[in-house]
Amino acid sequence: MQSKEIFHLQSYPSKLLEQAVNELAKLPGIGRKTALRMALHLLKRNIPEVESLGNAVIKMRNNIIYCSECRNISDQELCAICASPKRDHSIICVVEDIRDVMAIENTGQFSGVYHVLGGIISPMEGIGPMDLHIETLLTRVATGKVIEIILALPTTIEGDTTNFYLFRKLSAYNIKLTTIARGISIGDELEHTDEVTLGRSILNRTAYESGLAIK
Amino acid sequence: MQSKEIFHLQSYPSKLLEQAVNELAKLPGIGRKTALRMALHLLKRNIPEVESLGNAVIKMRNNIIYCSECRNISDQELCAICASPKRDHSIICVVEDIRDVMAIENTGQFSGVYHVLGGIISPMEGIGPMDLHIETLLTRVATGKVIEIILALPTTIEGDTTNFYLFRKLSAYNIKLTTIARGISIGDELEHTDEVTLGRSILNRTAYESGLAIK
Repeated sequence: MQSKEIFHLQSYPSKLLEQAVNELAKLPGIGRKTALRMALHLLKRNIPEVESLGNAVIKMRNNIIYCSECRNISDQELCAICASPKRDHSIICVVEDIRDVMAIENTGQFSGVYHVLGGIISPMEGIGPMDLHIETLLTRVATGKVIEIILALPTTIEGDTTNFYLFRKLSAYNIKLTTIARGISIGDELEHTDEVTLGRSILNRTAYESGLAIK
Repeated sequence: MQSKEIFHLQSYPSKLLEQAVNELAKLPGIGRKTALRMALHLLKRNIPEVESLGNAVIKMRNNIIYCSECRNISDQELCAICASPKRDHSIICVVEDIRDVMAIENTGQFSGVYHVLGGIISPMEGIGPMDLHIETLLTRVATGKVIEIILALPTTIEGDTTNFYLFRKLSAYNIKLTTIARGISIGDELEHTDEVTLGRSILNRTAYESGLAIK
């Protein structure tokens, strides 16, 4: 058998391909094999289509605006929700990121406004309170127009830490501070629910009729 | 409960974000949820990093060259394999795409050259022989310098159709036509192997010593 010297080819036959694969592999959840599949797929598409992808991400990153009120992603100074006179501006729902805003909007159950923290406190990832939009939330509360703050953060240690931090900061103000209900998901079996959730769902039981409505 | 009119927000709070998600969701295997996750991830990255991603895919699509000999992706007129005097240019291995070239190169078992078809015949996807690099393969064979053609296409109906088409086109030439061995994968159990593969592995049995070598 011939020696290894014959097979001196690098892994990728083209530097251009390699660079594209390297960049695509930096996307979350994308490994090098998937990145290569994406790159080969792009090579089969028309040039205008690929330019449209490349330019869309660059344009988004360069021109995106965050709502000056709630820090949600927006195309204008004020996002559509903050600009709407039909929304109740005295109730602010605090969420981690824009995906939570979209999820809550999809329920059609909330008519207040939001405040997007842009993350949660996570010492492991080096994210402290200063990296989040907490000061702007306190500024909004300080106007005196806010009646209720709903904390809608994830049920993780990081979420709880952030909840506690916000609780301490906000308790100085005369506002109602609530958190979204934790309990059994609709359609879940009791026997498959973890003890903490089940325990809390009993402690925080609600009157029968109001089971599915917002408090 | 308030009517739906209040919640007139489109799914995405920003056109720029929506466009980026639309484009990312066109990548193979990427749904809208994953595309949104990618877009939000990109928003957290520095502008130069995002520009580097966007430009890498555009640059690759605009400037990629296909080897004039084997149609593999390349940075030069001739790819590194076709340009190498150490490779055996009389044996051509026919493959579907560049990933197969990379896979075979990784084995270190093949010292010949390749021919990349750029796909396989698939009436379902509207890919006919004219869409593939078959004419250029015949031109290479017509030079009379080729001794053997190894067909290394997938074991699917499309692969078999393409094999048969190439077999008919190539049988006019005085060359050896082979196909890569089909059989039990190294490490596989006989009882878990499908009947067709197991049957073929018995019909195409090889002398004991040569079990792992190229014919």
